[in-house]
Amino acid sequence: MSVAAAEVQPTIDALSALLGDRLSVSVAVREQHGKDESYHTPHPPDAVAFAQSTEEVAEIVKICAEHGTPIIPFGTGTSLEGHVAALKGGICIDVSQMNEVVRVNAEDMDVTVQPGVTRKQLNEYLRDTGLFFPIDPGADASIGGMTATRASGTNAVRYGTMRENVLGLTVVLADGRIIKTSRRARKSSAGYDLTRLFVGSEGTLGVITEVTLRLYGIPEAISSAVCSFETIKGAVDTVITTIQCCVPVARIELLDDVQMDACNRYSDLDYPAKPTLFLEFHGTDAGVAEQARMVQEIAGENGGGNFQWTTKAEERTKLWQARHDAAYAAMALRPGAKGWATDVCVPISRLAECIMETKKDLEGTDLITPLVGHVGDGNFHLVFLVDPDKPEEIDEANRLNDRLVHRALAMEGTCTGEHGVGYGKLDFLVAEHGEAVSVMRMIKKSLDPDNLMNPGKVIRV
Amino acid sequence: MSVAAAEVQPTIDALSALLGDRLSVSVAVREQHGKDESYHTPHPPDAVAFAQSTEEVAEIVKICAEHGTPIIPFGTGTSLEGHVAALKGGICIDVSQMNEVVRVNAEDMDVTVQPGVTRKQLNEYLRDTGLFFPIDPGADASIGGMTATRASGTNAVRYGTMRENVLGLTVVLADGRIIKTSRRARKSSAGYDLTRLFVGSEGTLGVITEVTLRLYGIPEAISSAVCSFETIKGAVDTVITTIQCCVPVARIELLDDVQMDACNRYSDLDYPAKPTLFLEFHGTDAGVAEQARMVQEIAGENGGGNFQWTTKAEERTKLWQARHDAAYAAMALRPGAKGWATDVCVPISRLAECIMETKKDLEGTDLITPLVGHVGDGNFHLVFLVDPDKPEEIDEANRLNDRLVHRALAMEGTCTGEHGVGYGKLDFLVAEHGEAVSVMRMIKKSLDPDNLMNPGKVIRV
Repeated sequence: MSVAAAEVQPTIDALSALLGDRLSVSVAVREQHGKDESYHTPHPPDAVAFAQSTEEVAEIVKICAEHGTPIIPFGTGTSLEGHVAALKGGICIDVSQMNEVVRVNAEDMDVTVQPGVTRKQLNEYLRDTGLFFPIDPGADASIGGMTATRASGTNAVRYGTMRENVLGLTVVLADGRIIKTSRRARKSSAGYDLTRLFVGSEGTLGVITEVTLRLYGIPEAISSAVCSFETIKGAVDTVITTIQCCVPVARIELLDDVQMDACNRYSDLDYPAKPTLFLEFHGTDAGVAEQARMVQEIAGENGGGNFQWTTKAEERTKLWQARHDAAYAAMALRPGAKGWATDVCVPISRLAECIMETKKDLEGTDLITPLVGHVGDGNFHLVFLVDPDKPEEIDEANRLNDRLVHRALAMEGTCTGEHGVGYGKLDFLVAEHGEAVSVMRMIKKSLDPDNLMNPGKVIRV
Repeated sequence: MSVAAAEVQPTIDALSALLGDRLSVSVAVREQHGKDESYHTPHPPDAVAFAQSTEEVAEIVKICAEHGTPIIPFGTGTSLEGHVAALKGGICIDVSQMNEVVRVNAEDMDVTVQPGVTRKQLNEYLRDTGLFFPIDPGADASIGGMTATRASGTNAVRYGTMRENVLGLTVVLADGRIIKTSRRARKSSAGYDLTRLFVGSEGTLGVITEVTLRLYGIPEAISSAVCSFETIKGAVDTVITTIQCCVPVARIELLDDVQMDACNRYSDLDYPAKPTLFLEFHGTDAGVAEQARMVQEIAGENGGGNFQWTTKAEERTKLWQARHDAAYAAMALRPGAKGWATDVCVPISRLAECIMETKKDLEGTDLITPLVGHVGDGNFHLVFLVDPDKPEEIDEANRLNDRLVHRALAMEGTCTGEHGVGYGKLDFLVAEHGEAVSVMRMIKKSLDPDNLMNPGKVIRV
């Protein structure tokens, strides 16, 4: 047993007494909880606590606080910047057993869930209500994790991100106190916006144990389309004009030629291996038709081919499943490789410039690097397919990502549109926010003076 | 000269050296800056500093910090909970001379303004761009003040509040450091959401010196309508069903019989003195027609009369001017009286219940009390017309407001939908948020350890 592990033994003993066999120190369980879906080196926690209620999370946190043991919250482990890595050891609080939909308020179009509920589970649950929760980061992530990373994804161009769609939270603070950040009113000017402070705080300020979300009526009409372009610039210019014309597209996703080739192979499709937009329109029958006509016209002016339409639910599901599987499809291009996903987001007016310069930069590398993007938000990802055992490939990906981030920052963009900081983007955060990071640090120190809440993430204390 | 004034003399001397005649100690200027549009007792500051740049605000704050002098930011003085009252004396920083539109990014649909720019000035400036800024609290408030109070108003049901529409801020902190809270990308997961922390912080965490706002395309079609109802319940039920049917109304405002009578007199109109909805629809020609048809049908089912339509810009302006003048119209019902505006907001499903119980409660009072509301958000106001020299009337208004707030809180609502806490709602904030107020206090203490930034507002330190 390592020294660190010995230090944490009193915590483990106290948690075992509280949780029984819901406190696990098995190597397999710990290893599973120390890694996410990224290229980052896994760091297993000393033990994993499977919590079943807010009160239990509070008890766990109090025990950890008493012993000075770090705490790392865990949902589904689908994060991409090492968020769940136990960099300083400690206790992982797995909330996957807190997976109940607590209350649907159909008349107010909101829902309260425990943090372990996943987005697919939620929409399955809502099936008969005529309502849905639109935020869709691709992975079937937990609502708690999506809240903690301020996730977004394909629908954000129309419905916003977790920032706009979380109405309130229950949070366990670093000292074990439980707070509710907001009432259920749609708006309020009552004090500091604690809800938004915890959305995107990545477990560094407290553990999220309940989330109230905004819901939307399932649109009367939904139709999806796929459109290929001769050039990536044509596709991006179509997006920019669509947004600037205020067409309320529900989804507008870019996949470059490399990614389309990957998707065709992985999902058994036969789209042209060209830059392609995947689109979705929500609204009334007339509204959807109007939107689609406008975008088709814009695409035509930018060298886009005919729209391939689908209004059938199964076909739509297949189309979007292919989009969601893009990362896995990319990885299948190089079996055994890890996917390293970049995540910049720029003002829409700079998107074409940012993507074209990035594609040019990629000409100089041998790494296979598909590009996908939630381009309606100005957000796009490269996926570097790297062999984690080849340091020169990691270095190369690092150099390309460095240049990409600084390119985006120079265009008034952000180093992360939706993945979060984790421990992969600590330096970029400083490059992006400068002095403002010191304010984040003041808040962190004030709410978590002993640096026990997911230490080493978001900011260096 | 009072003792307090003597203590502040070194600060005044230093500021005079910095600002020359832009530092005023005249009684008239000080009195004007110690009061807002509410019933709250004015508290003039010791001096008023008219700042002209972010750097100058930073210098002023540094001087005040050095001498331990309180700072109160001031925009237009249209707040409603005593936000600008210098409860502990100190220096009022008037930003009305910081009134430049810094940069319009039409392609990204955003704009950066100095905090003294008012909303009408901004929309005037944007006139030729095809874009507009929708947030409209009624008063021609400054963008800085609207940001600081998390303002909203008539358009929020469609476009959101300042929370959703501020993209980034420049803020001078309590020690004079300058930070920018965000880049211009539409979304970001880069660290804690400092933008949202300062939106609604009411000058208690820093002074806002620049605001980047989201803009919207002016809709192809706009039409407004007025619809009278036999009962207030019919009007409210129309609103609830409209929202629950997801009709994207741009405005849906309720005025009760008392208020309509006041508006008719004040604005020379001849609407029936009955519960009335003022509506506005934005969209394409077809979209607007579709929305209007749906709402008319819903109104018909709830005892609503025919819609009185207007699509002409001048008539629309007249209609909404009457709505915006509602508070002044109310006050004209009792010349010499002060208006005391309440501000609860509840989940839409509880709105009818909350309004009906409130109307019932009002039956027991002799105070003239019109009711108006941004009912699409679940937000409504009573305006108590009180004689500030009659303590029994103030007491009566206090009792009615207490019951109203606790009624709203019991329905999972908030004590303030859009006016903010100021020093009028300190106790209600605790009633609403409980333990979470201690987290607000931790943040306040961390960012403003000497309690110099608008002391006595939002939370007791």
